[in-house]
Amino acid sequence: MNKPTLFLYDVVMNPIHAHSTAAEIRAACRTNEWTQPTSGFGHGYVQANLVILPKEYAFDFLLFCLRNPQACPLLGVSEAGDPEPKEVAPGADLRTDLPRYAVYEDGVQTATPQDLYHYWSDDLVSFLLGCSFTFEHAMLEAGLPVRHLEQGVNVPMYKTNRLNNKAGIFEGELVVSMRPLKPEVIDRATELSARMPLAHGAPVHVGDPRELGIADLDKPDFGEAVTVHPDEVPVFWACGVTPQAAIMAARPKLALTHLPGHMFLTDMRHEQISQS
Amino acid sequence: MNKPTLFLYDVVMNPIHAHSTAAEIRAACRTNEWTQPTSGFGHGYVQANLVILPKEYAFDFLLFCLRNPQACPLLGVSEAGDPEPKEVAPGADLRTDLPRYAVYEDGVQTATPQDLYHYWSDDLVSFLLGCSFTFEHAMLEAGLPVRHLEQGVNVPMYKTNRLNNKAGIFEGELVVSMRPLKPEVIDRATELSARMPLAHGAPVHVGDPRELGIADLDKPDFGEAVTVHPDEVPVFWACGVTPQAAIMAARPKLALTHLPGHMFLTDMRHEQISQS
Repeated sequence: MNKPTLFLYDVVMNPIHAHSTAAEIRAACRTNEWTQPTSGFGHGYVQANLVILPKEYAFDFLLFCLRNPQACPLLGVSEAGDPEPKEVAPGADLRTDLPRYAVYEDGVQTATPQDLYHYWSDDLVSFLLGCSFTFEHAMLEAGLPVRHLEQGVNVPMYKTNRLNNKAGIFEGELVVSMRPLKPEVIDRATELSARMPLAHGAPVHVGDPRELGIADLDKPDFGEAVTVHPDEVPVFWACGVTPQAAIMAARPKLALTHLPGHMFLTDMRHEQISQS
Repeated sequence: MNKPTLFLYDVVMNPIHAHSTAAEIRAACRTNEWTQPTSGFGHGYVQANLVILPKEYAFDFLLFCLRNPQACPLLGVSEAGDPEPKEVAPGADLRTDLPRYAVYEDGVQTATPQDLYHYWSDDLVSFLLGCSFTFEHAMLEAGLPVRHLEQGVNVPMYKTNRLNNKAGIFEGELVVSMRPLKPEVIDRATELSARMPLAHGAPVHVGDPRELGIADLDKPDFGEAVTVHPDEVPVFWACGVTPQAAIMAARPKLALTHLPGHMFLTDMRHEQISQS
């Protein structure tokens, strides 16, 4: 091998960076050089939630996504046995190209592997759903604060009292993410996120968390609490954890997902899913 | 019973008319007082194609609709065993409320019954897809000609050389309907139909039929030929027969549909599916 040692060292120690392409990040995940969350990576590339289910549940889940488009915006569906998301990342492999996965058997998490070869079969259907990382990028570009990124934690997420539209075995409550904003910038944040229905779209609620049945903002159901300053209002968006919660409650014999925060990088650019 | 004889006579001899509501037409179908095509009836109500399949094919067919939205615009999906189209006509019964049905077994039409009780089971999933009757209504209101209505025949429909996007067992070619128009009104017809993506949207082709692989406009694959005057251009729209052709080719063990022209009347008004 004639490759310089320095190059190999760089690749091993720092395989991806903020300006890596989606394909570079997927390659680093495939070789297990990258096994960490993808927040802040893949500048301008649309990130996606992954849900993989046996085909017997695929109709119910697809219908659940269609009936709850704000929480479950469909980016692509790969048919039974096909690990390639042809619609959003031709050539990629959903079994290897995410940093880390979660395996649920009968609704219980039983493993968090770095690839899915052990679990894969020709009976598995893969769904990619939009992710809020995409509109957060637009907020940052517009100079709006994203508190959990400032504080270096995962976004706070809460179960609500709003029921999802049922489809077959899938139902349960809407899960929301929260970002605190000053009142004068809420219109701007709403406008930016509303342009991206495939990244959860506009907020579902602004203001009093009790209207969503949330008792205490300091105790999120998923992720971590963030500071809400006295001059700020909590703003709530539909969250991609909604389908994961519905799946856990429905207890299918097998469900494979990304580990929260460890998303799939598509080749789609933010501009492609933005409406003017 | 104190109802006057005249009333009963009227109901029996002429159960529906151009200004009957969708619910009145469905009721007349349910009692078999009406077993004829629905073209021109249900003024202002959205009409729909019906496809019913065993659940084992439901995921493939739903995905086929999503991947071919112009030919297969989804109005509603009723889950396995549920004959009530809750999304578009609460209280209706898809087993009885259409004038006449077609039954396909292994891709072959085996019956054209007036209700589906004999074939119904808890395993059947129902799909309602948009229909061109809806934008024809808008064309007529705008003073544009609809030749097959003028000539009192079914719209001419043609198989094309355009491949559908495959989903599971469903694939095949796009089927189009054709309406001849003078060049100066084509923009207006395009504009009117483009506002209704749930009724097939804008034309897929204007002009030379050979570009779609259609050899002879006088020999449609479905429906009947209409006169195209020398100063007119043929205009082609995606057609709801596309999914029926795909189903026939895929040969599922059972498929239940409306008999062509004998559509389901939803409670949705044209305004509800029109974009401004």
